[in-house]
Amino acid sequence: MRLLEQKILSCGKIGEGDVLKVDSFLNHQIDVAFLNEIGKEFYKLFGNCKVNKILTIESSGIGVACITAQYFGVPVVFAKKTKTINIYADVFTSTVYSYTHQNTYEIVVSKEFLHPEDKVLIIDDFLAKGSALCALMSLIEAAGASTVGAGIVIEKAYQSGGDIVRAKGVRVESLARISSMNVQDGITFCN
Amino acid sequence: MRLLEQKILSCGKIGEGDVLKVDSFLNHQIDVAFLNEIGKEFYKLFGNCKVNKILTIESSGIGVACITAQYFGVPVVFAKKTKTINIYADVFTSTVYSYTHQNTYEIVVSKEFLHPEDKVLIIDDFLAKGSALCALMSLIEAAGASTVGAGIVIEKAYQSGGDIVRAKGVRVESLARISSMNVQDGITFCN
Repeated sequence: MRLLEQKILSCGKIGEGDVLKVDSFLNHQIDVAFLNEIGKEFYKLFGNCKVNKILTIESSGIGVACITAQYFGVPVVFAKKTKTINIYADVFTSTVYSYTHQNTYEIVVSKEFLHPEDKVLIIDDFLAKGSALCALMSLIEAAGASTVGAGIVIEKAYQSGGDIVRAKGVRVESLARISSMNVQDGITFCN
Repeated sequence: MRLLEQKILSCGKIGEGDVLKVDSFLNHQIDVAFLNEIGKEFYKLFGNCKVNKILTIESSGIGVACITAQYFGVPVVFAKKTKTINIYADVFTSTVYSYTHQNTYEIVVSKEFLHPEDKVLIIDDFLAKGSALCALMSLIEAAGASTVGAGIVIEKAYQSGGDIVRAKGVRVESLARISSMNVQDGITFCN
């Protein structure tokens, strides 16, 4: 998505530890008009897949998931992060390892909100090593529901997450795919 | 807002510790179509106030803030929660006490995203004792910006937060105001 690549080049900042800061439009301040363009694009890609639910993870996935959900006419469910391992019977649980923060946390979704008949589109802001995405997929699997695919705003294609998830046969559509990124040379995108 | 009161009566669950669970449409699963009705209502109330930014707090405020922001044509900024006291020069910081979780946490907003000329509408899902709302107001004050008002989805009017904030001269508009709530008698709303 050319518009997104331009936005990343003009507003993105490369931080330490391979961090791409897109705080000005996606992760802290949210450019809602721009998110609508992203939502339309996801609908172009997945609009004919009979999606009946969008799943994301708090916090930075929620904005883009909600705006996107309007085009699909479906509800959003966001997985909640928790540091305690939940042993409650009423939630599906999965584990995420954060490479950024170098810690492990649990994510949970209430069993009320994921059912076997659900056709779920996962929406998230970033895909790097794929830990969060795989955890979301395992929540869907635990519910006996289907993962229609994953709509990602920014994929660090030089990391392994995209390959891992596509190798599982899951359709991953990333609106911007970064092939390399560093302070010296800046950001380049996959063709 | 009658539609919201009906939704709370039909979908809300009263939990232990004075908790109102509205997980099915607001806090975990998000009914985006319904949030649009809420966004329109906030625009009716604050549409002529020259709002140029909406401020909320992660996580459950983000969905309603983003949907509402579409009617105003303005960006959303969400304050981030952190357990470490930030001493960085590039953020505004404030402290929230959570009565639900009985702990204290810091919220931060980058100085990049709040400026003296900003006319800020605060949007949040709940108002009870007002700790989060007061903390958001103090971030705005620290930036030298103006708080236009606060748009709250559900106010527990039998708690002190609304009175405290209104006594500061801040306009608070809550779309549902609960006058009492308990398992025996259910939920009643202020007239």
